[in-house]
Amino acid sequence: MVPSSYSYVFSPYREPIARVSPGRQVVVHCDDAFESRIRSREDIPSRSLAGAKFLNPQTGPIYIEGAEPGDTLAVHIEDITATRDFAVSCLIPYFGGLTSTALTRTLQPSLEEKVWIWKLEGNDLRCDELRMSLPWKPFMGTLAVAPDLEAISTLAPGPFGGNMDVPDVCPGNIVYLPVWNQGALFYTGDTHARQGQGELCGVALEITSKATFVFEVIRSRPISWPRIESPDRIMTVGSARPMEDAARIAYAELGAWLEADYGWSRLDAYQLMTQAGELYVGNMVDTTYSLVASISKQYVKRV
Amino acid sequence: MVPSSYSYVFSPYREPIARVSPGRQVVVHCDDAFESRIRSREDIPSRSLAGAKFLNPQTGPIYIEGAEPGDTLAVHIEDITATRDFAVSCLIPYFGGLTSTALTRTLQPSLEEKVWIWKLEGNDLRCDELRMSLPWKPFMGTLAVAPDLEAISTLAPGPFGGNMDVPDVCPGNIVYLPVWNQGALFYTGDTHARQGQGELCGVALEITSKATFVFEVIRSRPISWPRIESPDRIMTVGSARPMEDAARIAYAELGAWLEADYGWSRLDAYQLMTQAGELYVGNMVDTTYSLVASISKQYVKRV
Amino acid sequence: MVPSSYSYVFSPYREPIARVSPGRQVVVHCDDAFESRIRSREDIPSRSLAGAKFLNPQTGPIYIEGAEPGDTLAVHIEDITATRDFAVSCLIPYFGGLTSTALTRTLQPSLEEKVWIWKLEGNDLRCDELRMSLPWKPFMGTLAVAPDLEAISTLAPGPFGGNMDVPDVCPGNIVYLPVWNQGALFYTGDTHARQGQGELCGVALEITSKATFVFEVIRSRPISWPRIESPDRIMTVGSARPMEDAARIAYAELGAWLEADYGWSRLDAYQLMTQAGELYVGNMVDTTYSLVASISKQYVKRV
Amino acid sequence: MVPSSYSYVFSPYREPIARVSPGRQVVVHCDDAFESRIRSREDIPSRSLAGAKFLNPQTGPIYIEGAEPGDTLAVHIEDITATRDFAVSCLIPYFGGLTSTALTRTLQPSLEEKVWIWKLEGNDLRCDELRMSLPWKPFMGTLAVAPDLEAISTLAPGPFGGNMDVPDVCPGNIVYLPVWNQGALFYTGDTHARQGQGELCGVALEITSKATFVFEVIRSRPISWPRIESPDRIMTVGSARPMEDAARIAYAELGAWLEADYGWSRLDAYQLMTQAGELYVGNMVDTTYSLVASISKQYVKRV
Repeated sequence: MVPSSYSYVFSPYREPIARVSPGRQVVVHCDDAFESRIRSREDIPSRSLAGAKFLNPQTGPIYIEGAEPGDTLAVHIEDITATRDFAVSCLIPYFGGLTSTALTRTLQPSLEEKVWIWKLEGNDLRCDELRMSLPWKPFMGTLAVAPDLEAISTLAPGPFGGNMDVPDVCPGNIVYLPVWNQGALFYTGDTHARQGQGELCGVALEITSKATFVFEVIRSRPISWPRIESPDRIMTVGSARPMEDAARIAYAELGAWLEADYGWSRLDAYQLMTQAGELYVGNMVDTTYSLVASISKQYVKRV
Repeated sequence: MVPSSYSYVFSPYREPIARVSPGRQVVVHCDDAFESRIRSREDIPSRSLAGAKFLNPQTGPIYIEGAEPGDTLAVHIEDITATRDFAVSCLIPYFGGLTSTALTRTLQPSLEEKVWIWKLEGNDLRCDELRMSLPWKPFMGTLAVAPDLEAISTLAPGPFGGNMDVPDVCPGNIVYLPVWNQGALFYTGDTHARQGQGELCGVALEITSKATFVFEVIRSRPISWPRIESPDRIMTVGSARPMEDAARIAYAELGAWLEADYGWSRLDAYQLMTQAGELYVGNMVDTTYSLVASISKQYVKRV
Repeated sequence: MVPSSYSYVFSPYREPIARVSPGRQVVVHCDDAFESRIRSREDIPSRSLAGAKFLNPQTGPIYIEGAEPGDTLAVHIEDITATRDFAVSCLIPYFGGLTSTALTRTLQPSLEEKVWIWKLEGNDLRCDELRMSLPWKPFMGTLAVAPDLEAISTLAPGPFGGNMDVPDVCPGNIVYLPVWNQGALFYTGDTHARQGQGELCGVALEITSKATFVFEVIRSRPISWPRIESPDRIMTVGSARPMEDAARIAYAELGAWLEADYGWSRLDAYQLMTQAGELYVGNMVDTTYSLVASISKQYVKRV
Repeated sequence: MVPSSYSYVFSPYREPIARVSPGRQVVVHCDDAFESRIRSREDIPSRSLAGAKFLNPQTGPIYIEGAEPGDTLAVHIEDITATRDFAVSCLIPYFGGLTSTALTRTLQPSLEEKVWIWKLEGNDLRCDELRMSLPWKPFMGTLAVAPDLEAISTLAPGPFGGNMDVPDVCPGNIVYLPVWNQGALFYTGDTHARQGQGELCGVALEITSKATFVFEVIRSRPISWPRIESPDRIMTVGSARPMEDAARIAYAELGAWLEADYGWSRLDAYQLMTQAGELYVGNMVDTTYSLVASISKQYVKRV
C-alpha cells in the first residue's frame, strides 16, 4: 500500500490506512526518514529539514484482522526492495552518538553539517566521496505497534518496537510485538540500506523502499518487549537509558523466553546466557538506546 | 613463569616477578579468579570465598625490557592452555548483571547462590547439570599494564586494560596497551574457558591456565585506551559507566585510530563507523563496563 | 471543577473538561495517585490496585483561553487544600528507588508490600505506626500541558512538565510550561501532602485535594522545559535518564534563562551557577528522573 | 603542618608526613587544586597547567595514632582559614558539567578557556568582572583516608572520601571515614572558598588554606561510605556513575545508619527518607559523581 499521508507518532488515535488479514502478503511503501528532503551533498540538513516539523514518517497504522489485546503479532519480513538508486546519510546538529544532544546537553558548538550520498548498484552501496563500497544489507529502522493509550514520537523505540534501528529487523527474520489495541495497529518506515551497530552518527543509509510482510497473530501469549527470530538465533530487544538498563531488559527478556518456551529454570538460563549469549548495540543515538541480546538456537534445546 | 604470590592490584609499586625481552616467547601460569577455592557444586561462594579478602589474583608484574613511558606495548597472545580439566561458574551474592550490587544498591535479598561445573573434554565444555556442551574458546579475562601513579583493584577495567572480560583477548590476536612505567609492568590472569558477551552473571567459565605471550614495544606512539587486532578486524575497548560512555570512548578511539593510521578524516571516519562499525558488550558486571567497537580491515583501506 | 472522568495520559487528543480565562481563579478537584483505592494498612497494593489498569489519574485537560503554540503558560499556584484527613504511602512491588524495577531489571524477588497511613491534623501529618509527625507541606506531584502530537503516560515527567514530583510545585510559586496546543491543555493531579527529595520509595504522602490556580499566558516567549519561580529563587526542571542528563538539562536551561532575561553571557552564567547554583533531586523513581537547578534571585541581578 | 611535597594519589604506599594523636588540634596547610599555577585572568589553563602532570595536590598522609583497620575515623573540622586574599575558578578544556569530557567523549571542539578571579575581603568574595559578590563559605573539596590496597587519583571520590566536592565538608561538621590501614592515613586539600551544588564548570573557588582538625578514632564500628554530621542533620555521601547509582548508595547508607544507630526497621527508614529525606548533588564533574542524602536530626528520634 502507498500511504497518502504519514504518521509521526505510533498512535492508537489514528484511523487505519488499510486492513489486512493474517497470512496474506502485504507490500508497504515507505518514504525515507527525511521524507526525501535530502537528495544531494548540497542538501544541508539545517536548510533542507527546516520546513519539517517532524521526522521519520511512518506508513500506518495497518489494522491486522483478528489481533486483540493480549495477543502477540508476528511480523514475517519477506523482502525489502529499494525504490530509488541512492541512500543518504548526514550529520545533523546536536544529533548522534559522538556529539552533545538535546538530552545530553553541553555548551559546545555543534559539529559541522555534512551529507554523504551512497549509490545503490546491484548489491553494492558505493560512496564516491569516501572511495569505497559496502554491501546492501537492508532492514527496517522502524517497526511498531500502537502503544496502550499513549501516542509516542516515531523517533523513539520502546516496548512497542518503534525506532529500534536494529539491523536484525531484516528480510528472513520474524519480529514479535505485543498487541495492546484491536487490530494491533502496525506502523513501519525508516528503511536503512545498511547500518553499523550503534548507528553512530545517528543517520544510517536512509532509503525509500517497498517492504513485503506477512502478519501472523499468536493468540493470548502476551510478551512484554520485542523479540526477533532468525533461522539461527532468538533475540530480544531492550530499549532504555542508561544503556545498562537496556542491556538488563534485553537479557531478562531473553531469559524469560528460555524459561517459558524452552524449559530452562531461571538460574540455569542465567548461566547459559552468561556463557553463550551475545549482546550488541542497535542504536546509541535515539531517545532511548536499543540493545539486542541473543543466543544460538543450537544451545537452547538440550539433550 | 609460575608466580610465588599473586597481585590483587595493577600497581607500579610492586617488584617485578620477572624480566623478559621483547620478541621472546613467555609462558605465564595463572590461577583462576577464585584462586581455585571453588572446585565442586558444594563449594558455595559465601563459604568458599569467606577467607579471601581479595579476588582475581594476577600474575605479575612482568618487566618488559626497554618499554618506556609513552611507548605502546603490543601483547601477542599465542596460546592459552588449560592446566586442569574443569571450569567453574557461580552466582555470588550481589554480584552480576541481573542483580542489585554494591554499586547499584537496592534493599532486596540477594539471589540464591549456585555453582556450575563444566568439564573440559577436548574442545568441549560439558555441563552435566545443564545437559549441554559449549565449545572451548579461551581468552584472558584480565590483561593489564600498571597505571600511572595509581594502583587499581584487579576487578577493574580501564585505560590500562585490566579486567576487561572481552572475548577477543584471545589466542591469535594482539592487544595494545599504553605504557606509563619503565618496563610497562604487565599483569595477566582470570582465564576464561569461554564467555558470552556481557559476562551476564558476573562469572565466566573460570579456569587455571598457562598462557603464551610474545611482547613487542612500539616506540613513542602512545595510545590512550586498549586496542585489539585480529587477523580480520581492528578493535578498541572503552570502559566506563554508564555504558553509553564506554560506547562513546570505544568508537571515539576507533575513529582516532582510523584518523592516525589509515588516513581518514575525522568526519569521514565517523560516517564509516556509522555504516560498518560493530559494537558489543564485553562485560556489564565489573566496576566499569567494557564495550568493544570494531571494523573489518577490508573497509578501512580505500582504493 | 470536579472531573467526571480522569485522564491517564497527557494528551492533545482529549476533549477539554473546561475552559478558563487567564487571570481567573480556578479550583480543581483531584483524586490521589491511586484513585483512592488505598485507604488503610490492610489495602495491600497488589490487591487494591489489581483492578487499576492505569495509575495517577489527572484532572484535565483544561483549555486556557487564548493560549497558542509558541506561548508560555504561567501557572500561579495559589492554594492546595486537602479534601480528606489522611494521606497514604506504600511499597509497590518493583517500584521505587531502592528496588529493581521494570526499567532496571534484576532476577531478585520484590520487597515486601506495606502501607503507611499518615493522619492530617492541622499542619501535622502523624503516622501512628512510626510514632512521629511531619509538617504538612503540600504540592502537586503532577502538573502538565499536552505535548506536541504525543500522548504520554501520566507517570512520566518531561518537557511538558508532567509527573515531576518536585516539592517546589507548591502554593506561592509559579510554574512556567511550554505551549504546543491551542488552549495549552492543562492537566494536574497527584497531590502530595509532603515528600522528601527523590521520592525515594516511589510513593509520597498521597492525598486528595482541591487546588486553586490562576493562569497567565505569556505571548510568543517559548521555553523548552518547565521553570519555577518562588519569591526568592528561579528554578528549572530537567527530566531524563541517566540522572546526569537531567542535571545537565536543568543547569543548561537555567543558564539559558540567565542569558535571555538577566543579561548574563553564556560563560559568565556558567561561572555563576558553578559557585552559587543549587541542584536537588525531585524524583529518582519515575520513567525519567527530575532534577531541579536553581539560584537565588539576589545573585542574578548585578550592580 | 606544612608539607614539603604533595601527593596526587590517596595511597597506602606513601610514608606519613606526620603522626598525630586523637583529640589534639592539628593545623594542616594546603595548596590549591592547581598548585597555585593560576593567579590571574591571563593564566590560561592550557598554558599554566602545561607543566603539571597531575592536579589536586594533597597534604598527607597523616598517621592517626591508634587507628586500626575496621575502625572509623571521625574528622572534626574546626576551622578553615584562607592563606591568600583571592580565589580562582576557570574553564579547562574538556572538563566540567556542560562540556564533553574524557569520559563522555564527543567530537566537538572544546569550550573557550577562561579564568575568573574572586577577591576575598572579609566574608565577601568579590568578582570584579562579574560585578558581584558571594559569601565566603569555605570547605575542603578533598578529604580522604588511604584505600585498602589501592592507590587512587586525588581527582576521584569514593568510599574512602576523596575528591567529594561536597559543601558540607565544612567547619562545624564531622566527617566519618572508614579505616583500612594502620594509622588511617589521612589526606586533605582542594580548599574551596565556596561552591554551588554540582560544582558545575568543574572548578570551584579554589584557594590556599590552613585547616584545623581534631581526629577521633571510633573503635570497631566500621562504615562503608563517608558520613557527615552537622549540628542539625546526618548525611551520607555516595559516589558513583551514573548519578542514580550515587543516589542509591547515599540513601541506602543513610537507611543503614538509621537502622544501626536509631532503631528504625529497614522499611520504616525507607518510608521516613521518602517523606523527609533531602538529596543534593555535590559534584557532577569528577570521575564519579557525589550525591548527599540527609535527614534532620529532629526526625530520626521518635517519641
